[in-house]
Amino acid sequence: MFDILHRVGIHNAPPSSVYGALTSIDKLSNWWTSDTTGRSEIGSVIKFRFGERGFFDMKVLELEPAKRVVWEVADGPKEWIGTKVIWDLSPEGEGTTLRFKHQGWREPVDFMNHCSTKWASFLFSLKAQLESGKGTPFPDDFLISIDFD
Amino acid sequence: MFDILHRVGIHNAPPSSVYGALTSIDKLSNWWTSDTTGRSEIGSVIKFRFGERGFFDMKVLELEPAKRVVWEVADGPKEWIGTKVIWDLSPEGEGTTLRFKHQGWREPVDFMNHCSTKWASFLFSLKAQLESGKGTPFPDDFLISIDFD
Repeated sequence: MFDILHRVGIHNAPPSSVYGALTSIDKLSNWWTSDTTGRSEIGSVIKFRFGERGFFDMKVLELEPAKRVVWEVADGPKEWIGTKVIWDLSPEGEGTTLRFKHQGWREPVDFMNHCSTKWASFLFSLKAQLESGKGTPFPDDFLISIDFD
Repeated sequence: MFDILHRVGIHNAPPSSVYGALTSIDKLSNWWTSDTTGRSEIGSVIKFRFGERGFFDMKVLELEPAKRVVWEVADGPKEWIGTKVIWDLSPEGEGTTLRFKHQGWREPVDFMNHCSTKWASFLFSLKAQLESGKGTPFPDDFLISIDFD
C-alpha cells in the first residue's frame, strides 16, 4: 500500500477552527468544492462534487473534536475506493499543525502523483480560507495540470 | 522505502525548457533557491542553500535532455541523505507534464509530510517561473508551516 502525506501550519486558527473546516458542510464548501452536501456524522456520507470532473463520496469513520477526522472513500475514482483520508490536528503556537494522510493506494499510479499535488493545492486553499477567508474551492481551484485538473 | 510523488503540467513550455530549468544553475535559482551553485554535470554536485534553514547537496546521476534528470542527495538533512530526486518530462499539448519522485525515504516521518507539501509549493514556483517568469525561490518562498519553513 502507498500513502500520500502532507503537513501544513495554519496561523491564527486553533485546532477547533480547523476541525470545523473539516466537519461543517458549509465550511468544507469554502475550500474544497462549492458543491458539498451530506452529513458529517459517524457512518454518514459527505458528497463532494466537481461538475464534469468527477466526485468523491466519503463515509465518515472517525470524528474526534479538535483532534482527528477520518473518512473512507465509499465511491469515486476506482483508485480511491476503499482508501482512507486522515486528518490529524495539533496545536502549534497560536495556530494548528495539520497532518494529512491519504492512505491505502494499491499502486503508485500516475493518478496518485496528480492527486498528491492536487491535495497540496487544496490544503493551501484550506489554509488561505482559515487565515484570510479566501479559499479557492472548485470551480475556482488552482489547475495544476494540462491534461487533468 | 517510501516515496513522495507529484505531477504538474506546465503550459507553453516544451520539455526542453523544463529541462533547462532543472539543469541550469541560473535557472534553478529562479524557482528553488536563489543561492544555487555548482555544476550540473554527471558526477558533479549542485549546492542548494537556504540560509539558516539548511542545505542540500545533490550529486547529478542522470541527465537525459528534455526527458529525465536524477539527483542523489549527497549531503543535507539526515533523512534525505542517499535518497534520490527524479524528474521525468513528457510533452503534453503545447507544454510539458512533469512527474516528480523523491525516492527512498527510510521511514514516513513527520519531516516527510512536510517535505511532500513543500515540494508541491516549489513545483508551483517552477510552473509559475516557466509560465509567467514569476517564480518564488528562497528567500521569497511560500511558508507552509508555523514551526518549519
